[in-house]
Amino acid sequence: MSRPIAILGGTGPAGTGLALRWARAGETIIIGSRSDERAQEAASKIRQRAGSDARVSGTANAAACAATDLLALTIPFEGQVGLLKELKPSFQPGSILIDATVPLAAAVGGRASRTLGVWQGSAAQQTAELVPKGVKVVAAFQNCSADSLNGDDPVECDVIVCSDDPEATQLVCRLAAQIPGLRAIDGGKLENARLVEQLTALLVGLNIRHKGHGGIRITGLPASAYRSLG
Amino acid sequence: MSRPIAILGGTGPAGTGLALRWARAGETIIIGSRSDERAQEAASKIRQRAGSDARVSGTANAAACAATDLLALTIPFEGQVGLLKELKPSFQPGSILIDATVPLAAAVGGRASRTLGVWQGSAAQQTAELVPKGVKVVAAFQNCSADSLNGDDPVECDVIVCSDDPEATQLVCRLAAQIPGLRAIDGGKLENARLVEQLTALLVGLNIRHKGHGGIRITGLPASAYRSLG
Repeated sequence: MSRPIAILGGTGPAGTGLALRWARAGETIIIGSRSDERAQEAASKIRQRAGSDARVSGTANAAACAATDLLALTIPFEGQVGLLKELKPSFQPGSILIDATVPLAAAVGGRASRTLGVWQGSAAQQTAELVPKGVKVVAAFQNCSADSLNGDDPVECDVIVCSDDPEATQLVCRLAAQIPGLRAIDGGKLENARLVEQLTALLVGLNIRHKGHGGIRITGLPASAYRSLG
Repeated sequence: MSRPIAILGGTGPAGTGLALRWARAGETIIIGSRSDERAQEAASKIRQRAGSDARVSGTANAAACAATDLLALTIPFEGQVGLLKELKPSFQPGSILIDATVPLAAAVGGRASRTLGVWQGSAAQQTAELVPKGVKVVAAFQNCSADSLNGDDPVECDVIVCSDDPEATQLVCRLAAQIPGLRAIDGGKLENARLVEQLTALLVGLNIRHKGHGGIRITGLPASAYRSLG
C-alpha cells in the first residue's frame, strides 16, 4: 500500500497478528494502543519477529488514527464504542476503516461461543454509525484465528470482505491476499457482516469442543471469486 | 442404518438431494409430501438415478412420519410450523428428527441472503418446541448446496451437527459421513444451530454475487473432529 496501516487497539492477539503478517509483506504499520508505551512495546516485539527491514512503530490510538487514512480496528467488542467516540476527531476525511470486531457475549461476561444482538445489526454497522461521515467501514478478518495470524504458517482461512464501497472492498481484498494462506472474497454490502460475525462464535465453540484453531474455507465458487497470493 | 429414513417435505431440492445420496449409500428412504402422488413421483425419479437396488418409496408426510423413528425435515421455513403441528400425532416416541430448515427472509418475500429472527433463537429450536416430548431434534445439512447434493460429484462441504442428545448427534454424523465429500463435525448443543443457520444466508449471498454453489469447510481442527468416508 502507498500509505501506512494503523492498527487501532492493536496490542491484542488479532492486532499483533495482522501487524506481523502485513509487516512481513512490506507494509508500514503503526500500532495504536491506550498508552504510547504499550504500543511501542508491541511494535518492538513485532519488529523482532518480522525481520530487521520491518517498519512497525507504536503510539497512542488517536495519534495512530490521525497519521494515516488506512485503519484497522482490532479491539474487543466491549471497547469498540468507547474507542470510536474517542477517535472521532482524529479521522482523516475519506479514511478506510477495517473492522474485525465481533459482538461475542464474552463482552458482558458471557461465552465467546455466543453473540450479543447489536441494534444496528452487527458490530461493523455499529462502527459505521460512529465514525465521521465519509469514513468507509470495511468488515473483514473476523474469522481468522489470532493464533494462526501470530504464527509462521500460512493462515488456512477465507476472509469475507463486506462494505458499501466497492473500491474499499477491493483494497481490503488486496491487503488480505498479502497474507500467505488467506483468500479474500467480496462478501457484498456491509450489512452482510452480521452473518460473518456469527461465524466467529461458531468457530470459537468448535475450537473449545475440539481443541483447535478453526478457520473457514468457502467451497464451490468460481476461481474469480477468490483473491490470494497463490 | 437399521431403520428407514423418512424425509418430510422431501420433494424439494434439499430433500431429493439427501434422498438420492442416502439411497446410493444403501439406506431405505421414504419421501414424504403433502400428496401421496407427488411423493411417489419424486421417489420414482430418485430410484431411476440411484440405481435398481435403491429402496425409495413415497407417501404422505404423516404416513412417512409414522413409519419410522429416523426423520429429516427439508421444508422451506414458511412451511415448518404448519407441517410440524400437523405431524405431531404421528411421531413415534423417541424419534430422531434431523432439521435442515433455515429462516431465510425469502419465507416472507424477502431475500434468501438475509435471515429472519426466530423467537426461539433458530429454526431448529422452533422445531424442538413443536415436536412431542422425547423427540430428539438434530440440526444439520443447512449449509449443503442442494445443487451439489442432487449431483454426482462429492459434496464439498462440512456438516455442523448440533443437538442436545450426544447419541443422536453421533448417529447423524454417521449419516452425513455416508455422503461422499461431506465431513461431519459435532457442533455441540442445539442452540448453536442459530449460528449455522446464519451461514446459509451468507452462502446464498455469495452464490448470487459470484455465481457458484458455495459450501463451507472448517479448517484448523484436529483430525478427530471430522467424520467422513475418506
